[in-house]
Amino acid sequence: MNNIEFILPEEIEKRSFEIISKELGERGISLKPEQEMVIKRVIHTSADFEYAQTLTFSEGAVEKAKELLRNGADIVTDTNMGLAGINKTVLARYGGAAHCFMADKEVAELARQHRTTRAAVSMEMAAKIEKPVIFAVGNAPTALIQLYEMITAKSFRPAFIIGVPVGFVNVEAAKELILTTEVPYIVNRGRKGGSNVAAAVCNAILYELGR
Amino acid sequence: MNNIEFILPEEIEKRSFEIISKELGERGISLKPEQEMVIKRVIHTSADFEYAQTLTFSEGAVEKAKELLRNGADIVTDTNMGLAGINKTVLARYGGAAHCFMADKEVAELARQHRTTRAAVSMEMAAKIEKPVIFAVGNAPTALIQLYEMITAKSFRPAFIIGVPVGFVNVEAAKELILTTEVPYIVNRGRKGGSNVAAAVCNAILYELGR
Repeated sequence: MNNIEFILPEEIEKRSFEIISKELGERGISLKPEQEMVIKRVIHTSADFEYAQTLTFSEGAVEKAKELLRNGADIVTDTNMGLAGINKTVLARYGGAAHCFMADKEVAELARQHRTTRAAVSMEMAAKIEKPVIFAVGNAPTALIQLYEMITAKSFRPAFIIGVPVGFVNVEAAKELILTTEVPYIVNRGRKGGSNVAAAVCNAILYELGR
Repeated sequence: MNNIEFILPEEIEKRSFEIISKELGERGISLKPEQEMVIKRVIHTSADFEYAQTLTFSEGAVEKAKELLRNGADIVTDTNMGLAGINKTVLARYGGAAHCFMADKEVAELARQHRTTRAAVSMEMAAKIEKPVIFAVGNAPTALIQLYEMITAKSFRPAFIIGVPVGFVNVEAAKELILTTEVPYIVNRGRKGGSNVAAAVCNAILYELGR
C-alpha cells in the first residue's frame, strides 16, 4: 500500500500536531502560547489552517476557561454532535457535566409556541443551571443571539462563551455580537465553525488541565 | 442588533442553500445534478466551498446509496459524533439502523491486544452485520485501510463507503486506496473531512429519498 506509513495508534495524534506546528511555521504564523493548543486542536479536527487567522480570544480567555473547568463548571452545547464530541470523562474528573437540551420535548414545544428556534429555548433552559456554565455553540446563531439578549438585559450572565456556529444566515453577525459583550469568549469570526470545532475547543482546554 | 435578519427557523436552511447555490455559480462551479445535494449539504455543514472540488463519486454513487438506504441498509460510522449527527429517524423509516462500535469494551480490548486502532477493530465487527452496510468514515484512516484489506483479501465487501476522514497522517493515502476498489464510494480527496461531513453526506442521501 503506497504512502501508508505504519504508525502506532498512540503516535498518530502526536505526529499530527508536529505536522500542524511545522506548517504553521511555513505559513509564517506564530501563535500566542496561551492560545496555541486550542488553535492547533481546531486545525487537527478540521485540517483547515484558516482557523489560525479567525479564532478570536478575549483577554486571558484560555486561562479563564481552564479556571472554570478546574472548578467544576458545566458545558452546555447546542447540538448532540457537540455533546458526543466533548470528552465527558475528563470533564467529570473536575466535577463538570455536559448538556444539550435540543432534543428535549419541552424545548421543541416552547420553540413552536414562541415561533423561535429550539436553540434559543435551549439557552433559556441552560440559564437555569445553578452553577457556572460554559456555552459551546457550534451550530445555531440563534443560540448566540439569545445569549446576547439575556446578557444585555442583565437577566443572565454566562460564565464563558465558545461561539463557533457554522453557516450562511446570521452566523457572522451573531458572532460579532458576542465580541461586544463583557463575557469571556473564544469566537471564530466568519462563517466557519461547527459542532466538531466546538467540541475541539472544549477538549483542548480540558486536556490543558492535565498538563 | 446590526446585520441580524429576522427569519423564521424553517426558512434558515432554505435560505442557506440559496446562498450556497448562488456562490457556487459565482465561482463558476457547476455540479452534476445527481451529486448536487450531497455537495451542497457538505458545504452547508462546513461553510467550506473547497468540498465542491474534492468530493469524488464513483459512477452513479448517489443513486446506488439511495437504493441501499431505500432497501433498509444499515450505516456504520467510526465516531459517536458521526452517529449523533446521522438522522436516525429517517434512516429507520426505511428499515435501517446506525451503529458505532468505537466505545465498545470488546473493541478497545481487541485493539490493545492486536496493537491496532479501535477503528480497525470496529470495521471487523461491522463486517459481521448480516445485511448491506454503508460505511461512513469521518475520523480514522485506519478504518479505511482495514476495509481496503478486507476487500482485497475478498473476506468482506462493504455495500458502500463514505470515506471522509480528516487529518494529517495516512489520511490522504487511505482515501486513495478506496478509489482503487470496485466498491461504490463517496470520498473527499485530501486532508479534509470529519464526522460532521460523514453525517452530512448520509443525511443528504436520506433526505433525497423523501423527494
